[in-house]
Amino acid sequence: MSDTEITVVPDRQDIVLSRVFEAPRDIVFRACTDPALVPRWWGPGHYNTTVERDDVTAGGIWRYTSRDENGVEYRFHGVYHEITPPHRIVATFEFEGMPGHVSLETVTLWENGADRTRYVGTSVFQSVADRDGMVQAGMEEGAREGMTRLAEVIRVLRERSGQ
Amino acid sequence: MSDTEITVVPDRQDIVLSRVFEAPRDIVFRACTDPALVPRWWGPGHYNTTVERDDVTAGGIWRYTSRDENGVEYRFHGVYHEITPPHRIVATFEFEGMPGHVSLETVTLWENGADRTRYVGTSVFQSVADRDGMVQAGMEEGAREGMTRLAEVIRVLRERSGQ
Repeated sequence: MSDTEITVVPDRQDIVLSRVFEAPRDIVFRACTDPALVPRWWGPGHYNTTVERDDVTAGGIWRYTSRDENGVEYRFHGVYHEITPPHRIVATFEFEGMPGHVSLETVTLWENGADRTRYVGTSVFQSVADRDGMVQAGMEEGAREGMTRLAEVIRVLRERSGQ
Repeated sequence: MSDTEITVVPDRQDIVLSRVFEAPRDIVFRACTDPALVPRWWGPGHYNTTVERDDVTAGGIWRYTSRDENGVEYRFHGVYHEITPPHRIVATFEFEGMPGHVSLETVTLWENGADRTRYVGTSVFQSVADRDGMVQAGMEEGAREGMTRLAEVIRVLRERSGQ
C-alpha cells in the first residue's frame, strides 16, 4: 500500500487527501459506504466509534459518536448530497463540539491500473480559519490513521470476494 | 435598502455576499425559507422558477427549475444540512448542467440595530477553478438581482405583519 498524501496549501480553504488502495473500485466504494464497516476504520484506532444513524443516500443523515479511552464522547453528523457508485460521495461534515462550522467532503475514486484505485478526498471549509483550526486540532494524523485502517478493511473485503 | 456587497478574493474558494434588510430577523428568515416565496425572489427576474421539491429541514432535499424566456430549463438541487431559526441556513448547491460540482452555502442573519438585519451568504466551492467558473458565468449579477427581489418580498411581508 502507498502512503496517504495530505495537501494543505497556505491561505486556501481546503484539505486534499490522496491514497492508492490495492483493490478494484467497487470494493473500495463498498468499504467507504457500508455503515457496518464504519467502526472499523473511521478516525483514529484508539477511538471507539458507534454509528448512530447512517442513511447512505442523497438527503440521508449520518451521525457517529467516537469515545476515547476515558469515555469522553465526540459526536459528528452531516447529510449526504450524492452517493454515486462506484466513484463519488459528497456529504457535509460537522463536529457537534463546534456547531455552525461545517465542511463539504467529496470522495472521488479513480481506476488506477488493474485492481488499483486512487482515493481522493477533498474537504472544503467555510473559511481559511476553520480549515487551519482543523489542521491544528490534529486532523492530519487522525486522517492518516483512518486511511491505514481503511486499507485493512479493503484488504479483508478483497480477500473474501476472491477478486 | 443598502446595496448588496459581493466579495471575491483571488485564489480563494469562496464568494461572500452581504446585504442589510430593513426588517427584523424573523421576517428575513421566513422570506429566505418559505418554499411558497422562492419563485418571487430566487435568481434573476427574467427566469421563471418552479419549486419541484423543498423540504426545509436538516436532511431535506430542495430542487428548483428555472425557465428562461425561450423555455430553456435549468435545474438546481441540494440538501439542507441545518435550518436554525432565526439565524442560520446551511445547504449544498448543485447546477444539474454541471454534475459533480457542488458548493456549500451558509446564510447567517445578524441583528443590526432595531428592525434591521444583516444577511451574510457564503458559498464555498470544491476548487478555486469552480469558484472562478461560477463568477465568469455571471453569478454576481444574478445574485444582486435575487437580493433586490428578496428585499421586495421582505418589504411586503413586513407590511403585512405590521412589524
